[in-house]
Amino acid sequence: KINADRLWETLHETCKWGESHRYGEKTTETGMARLTLTDDDARVRRWLAAEVEKLGCTLSVDQMGNMFARQPGKLKSAKPMTAMGSHLDTQPRGGRYDGILGVMAALEVLRTMKDNGFSTNFDIGIVNWTNEEGARFPKSMCSSGVWAGAVPIQKAWNLQDIHNPDVKLRSELIRHGYLGELPCDATSGFRLGAHFELHIEQGPILTDSGRSIGIVQGAQGYRWLAFTIKGKDAHTGTTPLSARQDPLLAASRMIAASNDIATRHDALASTGILKVPSNASTNTIASEVTFTLDIRHPLDDVVQAVQKKCLEAFTRIAAQDGKGVTFDWTLETDSPAVRFDKGCIASVQEAADTLVGPNGSMPLTSGAGHDSVYTSKHCPTTMIFVPCKDGVSHHPTEYCSPEHCALGTQALLESVVHYDSFRLSQG
Amino acid sequence: KINADRLWETLHETCKWGESHRYGEKTTETGMARLTLTDDDARVRRWLAAEVEKLGCTLSVDQMGNMFARQPGKLKSAKPMTAMGSHLDTQPRGGRYDGILGVMAALEVLRTMKDNGFSTNFDIGIVNWTNEEGARFPKSMCSSGVWAGAVPIQKAWNLQDIHNPDVKLRSELIRHGYLGELPCDATSGFRLGAHFELHIEQGPILTDSGRSIGIVQGAQGYRWLAFTIKGKDAHTGTTPLSARQDPLLAASRMIAASNDIATRHDALASTGILKVPSNASTNTIASEVTFTLDIRHPLDDVVQAVQKKCLEAFTRIAAQDGKGVTFDWTLETDSPAVRFDKGCIASVQEAADTLVGPNGSMPLTSGAGHDSVYTSKHCPTTMIFVPCKDGVSHHPTEYCSPEHCALGTQALLESVVHYDSFRLSQG
Ligand SMILES: NC(=O)NCCC(=O)O
Ligand SMILES: NC(=O)NCCC(=O)O
Repeated sequence: KINADRLWETLHETCKWGESHRYGEKTTETGMARLTLTDDDARVRRWLAAEVEKLGCTLSVDQMGNMFARQPGKLKSAKPMTAMGSHLDTQPRGGRYDGILGVMAALEVLRTMKDNGFSTNFDIGIVNWTNEEGARFPKSMCSSGVWAGAVPIQKAWNLQDIHNPDVKLRSELIRHGYLGELPCDATSGFRLGAHFELHIEQGPILTDSGRSIGIVQGAQGYRWLAFTIKGKDAHTGTTPLSARQDPLLAASRMIAASNDIATRHDALASTGILKVPSNASTNTIASEVTFTLDIRHPLDDVVQAVQKKCLEAFTRIAAQDGKGVTFDWTLETDSPAVRFDKGCIASVQEAADTLVGPNGSMPLTSGAGHDSVYTSKHCPTTMIFVPCKDGVSHHPTEYCSPEHCALGTQALLESVVHYDSFRLSQG
Repeated sequence: KINADRLWETLHETCKWGESHRYGEKTTETGMARLTLTDDDARVRRWLAAEVEKLGCTLSVDQMGNMFARQPGKLKSAKPMTAMGSHLDTQPRGGRYDGILGVMAALEVLRTMKDNGFSTNFDIGIVNWTNEEGARFPKSMCSSGVWAGAVPIQKAWNLQDIHNPDVKLRSELIRHGYLGELPCDATSGFRLGAHFELHIEQGPILTDSGRSIGIVQGAQGYRWLAFTIKGKDAHTGTTPLSARQDPLLAASRMIAASNDIATRHDALASTGILKVPSNASTNTIASEVTFTLDIRHPLDDVVQAVQKKCLEAFTRIAAQDGKGVTFDWTLETDSPAVRFDKGCIASVQEAADTLVGPNGSMPLTSGAGHDSVYTSKHCPTTMIFVPCKDGVSHHPTEYCSPEHCALGTQALLESVVHYDSFRLSQG
């Protein structure tokens, strides 16, 4: 049984590196700004390295700075370890749980095993994936992506700090001593036998349904499209509606249409960024507008169908209203849906049934991308979700109760133990 | 008969002060950036002062730097002069005709009268209104507004340069020697007997209908509303549509609705500015959006009705979609419709009928605000519109052909001469 107090204390103790955006009086009532490979991120990495060495783990660091802590199993087999992974970097206005909980829970699992003199059959360990958030070096799930062969390492190394183009991800790895020699590669580098990730849900489904464990079946597919709508500057007072080419009006109708289409398909379509690059003024119609569209659904076919319907609607909208506008778009991200491993899911289900009974858990599809999306391409993978308050995440007030942190960690422990036996039974 | 070549040459010659944004190879193929009370604006003011003095005018400058050039009439009456006014300042990416044509045409009218030894009965003259555009010191029709008693002079004097808050309109008046002693006041300052303004239409109606003179009946009313929509940041991948409070989606539906409502009322509703102040990202729903709404119609009742319908629709929209958003709004500008003077309009009609026949002109309502909107509150006023290419204005490529510049100027001459006789007949 894991030590809930030690977990809670360790998690918040290590948040001294990067804490920011205070919102309440309690010591834990701050958000986090621990951007990847900043001094604070290097501090928590060195702390983690020391802790896992205390436990007797061997630590490997690969060419992306991914940290792999390995605890030998009873079998002394050469088989790759069962990993518990997540990330220690945060958003610039992030919270204390997203990613951090997953790594601290993994550490608590190893500590608990050691306290109890318990050893798994296969090797077991922790992974801290570099730059999951992509907030400082703009590529999310960056280093699990390199590991999985989905992101070329040169591209990842060359990512620039969004505020200082002279600083590259590779130069920051070197500065902190985190450019390892081991290739960052699922087959020729540090191999994984399985990957379990505990994470806050980042959405309201568990909270709204009163369940405390989400058994993650996979992650939905998503595509990010960026649109540029071109019209023509015109005076708002002297230009009849019929003579206009109003890109902001067209963009507004497009955003409304994308929401209607997504609703009809039970999918998500969201616009997070909309910019009017020209010198805007109240009495001038803009000449150009850009906006993003993020389409998601557990089925790739539905993502494609929503995209198709949106593009058809946008073409109609562009031709309507005044003299019409033109539009272009580019695909910025294409992340197909993944289904997690049946064996891993069964282990989590077993753990959840024991801990909270059949009404305490529910199957979920991850709405967001996670490092587990990439690991699932090379090893059996699944995730465990625990509720976060009001579904709020990527925000300083992000909160997961001590009880839910402990429950998720206990579920992680029991899942990896169950999976370890399952691996043994598979031979 | 006015001298078309002299008019054209004078106009473009004086555009050397402030020319900017070249778009073609001909000397005249540039836009203008002659912001009010900049060094270039001061240069063209000194040039104008010298030119009107050569003609024998007396020049008065009031406390807002408005320039009044007065040519005595035959009657030597104390009655206020018939003025031909407009402005010499431009937008930062403006053209060579907006405002400038009106002042240069007025000068050409006085030159033509002098060449022909012609005198009006009443005094006649030119007005150059300070800061019509409100582009540098953000208040459009600023100094005709002070003159009319609609803008307090302290407020106008304290306007800050939009790029440098240390520079005030009053300090720039002093720097250039344009802070006159005469009160800026329609009754206790420089009084006007009538105000005629030649201006480019700034819209496509004349061009589209093949007419060359617009006889301006008045100016439409307009109201500028500024909206702030508040929602809540949320992850685009993990937050169901039903759990969102998406201010950008709501704003989009509001803008679309305002356009639908305006269309039904044959009015104009336009959004020129939309901002997402929070740190936007593709996978985060914004927390706040602000946008402007500019509503216009020749009847104030219709402006009010469109505003009412918009607010009703916005309230409905704010309550729909997910968990709903909240919104606030403020009134930034309220410019009621004005009807110009029947006597002035009749004089322009007479001039137009002589020059282009009944099919060459048409009655128009000004879509934009002009200094004439304010003068109309204190003296008989009207405007003459000439076509500008494709209705484009507030843009470097703004263009009015030499023929239309000349035609408008001839119409201005004949209108003021006709009105001068009319004044005499009124005693
Ligand atoms: N967990 C997370 O926010 N990942 C970023 C990629 C996404 O938008 O899903
Ligand atoms: N002429 C002009 O652009 N005036 C500014 C005020 C308005 O938007 O109508």
